[in-house]
Amino acid sequence: MANSEKIILVTNDDGITAPGIRALVEAVKPYGKVVVVAPDSPQSGMGHAITIGVPLRLNPVDIFEGVEAWTCSGTPVDCVKLARDKILHGKPDICVSGINHGANHAINVIYSGTMSAAMEAAIEGIPSAGFSFLDYSYDADFTLPKQVAREVVGKMIAQGLPEGGLLNVNVPVCNLEDFKGPKICRQANAKYVEAFDERRDPHGKKYYWLTGDFKNLDTGTDTDVWALDNNYASIVPVQFDLTNYALKQQLSDTWKF
Amino acid sequence: MANSEKIILVTNDDGITAPGIRALVEAVKPYGKVVVVAPDSPQSGMGHAITIGVPLRLNPVDIFEGVEAWTCSGTPVDCVKLARDKILHGKPDICVSGINHGANHAINVIYSGTMSAAMEAAIEGIPSAGFSFLDYSYDADFTLPKQVAREVVGKMIAQGLPEGGLLNVNVPVCNLEDFKGPKICRQANAKYVEAFDERRDPHGKKYYWLTGDFKNLDTGTDTDVWALDNNYASIVPVQFDLTNYALKQQLSDTWKF
Repeated sequence: MANSEKIILVTNDDGITAPGIRALVEAVKPYGKVVVVAPDSPQSGMGHAITIGVPLRLNPVDIFEGVEAWTCSGTPVDCVKLARDKILHGKPDICVSGINHGANHAINVIYSGTMSAAMEAAIEGIPSAGFSFLDYSYDADFTLPKQVAREVVGKMIAQGLPEGGLLNVNVPVCNLEDFKGPKICRQANAKYVEAFDERRDPHGKKYYWLTGDFKNLDTGTDTDVWALDNNYASIVPVQFDLTNYALKQQLSDTWKF
Repeated sequence: MANSEKIILVTNDDGITAPGIRALVEAVKPYGKVVVVAPDSPQSGMGHAITIGVPLRLNPVDIFEGVEAWTCSGTPVDCVKLARDKILHGKPDICVSGINHGANHAINVIYSGTMSAAMEAAIEGIPSAGFSFLDYSYDADFTLPKQVAREVVGKMIAQGLPEGGLLNVNVPVCNLEDFKGPKICRQANAKYVEAFDERRDPHGKKYYWLTGDFKNLDTGTDTDVWALDNNYASIVPVQFDLTNYALKQQLSDTWKF
């Protein structure tokens, strides 16, 4: 199959107007026919949420030159489901999500709408990747993450991924000349140390804002956190079989019912 | 430590008024001091969503006899985070979530607010379990799942779980006399074959409802789907390191940058 025949589904969680998705569309355009289906509003932190209590809407938009694009009223996962069923009427050859404005490395993968969209496609057997840039600002310079996305998607097409193959790609904030290239990694053992900011509304009632500091507990040099700290782009292959096989064995041996 | 000193955090995703959480409170009451922090409205399908764009509210409620209880305006994961920081001012000894009105076996684990709440606690190092009942109805008979929850939490307390230990417990719909007991399992390879129901609103515009059929692709007899089909309660130990180590090795060997 010629590259031009590949169907590439692009989505994100920052919403269709975010600069990051525009960079991703440009990154993958050389590889085939791009179709964008993305949330009509920001969906950061939505994890693998799906919309079941309200109906969903799709609307065509013309904001990417020469590229079919739709907004969806739902979550990133809803976008992928609707794209397959109602827009593509079948599976795309590849699904890419992002480029997220902010990190999705380490434990962030489980909160990330960007990664959940890509995971949804992977569950359907579509080779998929989520791309995130450690610069959180709206007007970040996407030159480096765009270059990384083009290289990684090129590899996905040229070398393929096995059934269910899914990549979590994060790109560091660094000068182009200091960038050391992509690196295959594992998910670091890291988490957030959180505290809620407690305030009072004009009626005297308390309310809370989530705040927190990211804390790496992992000293390994094969982790995504290490790679990003050392100016590599991290590529973590991700799975959706969440079985903890070691604990399964331990409980099978020791828990008698 | 005496059982009575244990702090047991109870949450869910169906909302604090759901009968399932009442059954879970009753199931774990013999083991210590129960504190309930649950969503003020149904949050099914929220996955690991967190609330970052709007502030959160907590309100005390008195609906469980002799049990401290709070509603939270956010997601199940928000409940666990807020409970630790603003209500318990520290970690509970155990966190249990559910009993969900509906299945969270196989791939449902990644969409499940019930399991995400338990996972959030596990990330914090709290032994945790999510409980789900395959009966979706509001007025389901929770006798069997309540009995299973009491037995499993008893085991968690008596035998302990290692750091990060997290269990996904599903209970079949069957007569008490046909029930075969709990069984340690792996997550089945199963998914949804989905189709959106397309309708038109009174203004002629299209909208979509998510619908789908669950399809088991896994012939193993050690899976949660098999256990439930055969009148066992399934217990799948769950992890939050999502690294696909086999694919990591494969890509490290074959992808050269």
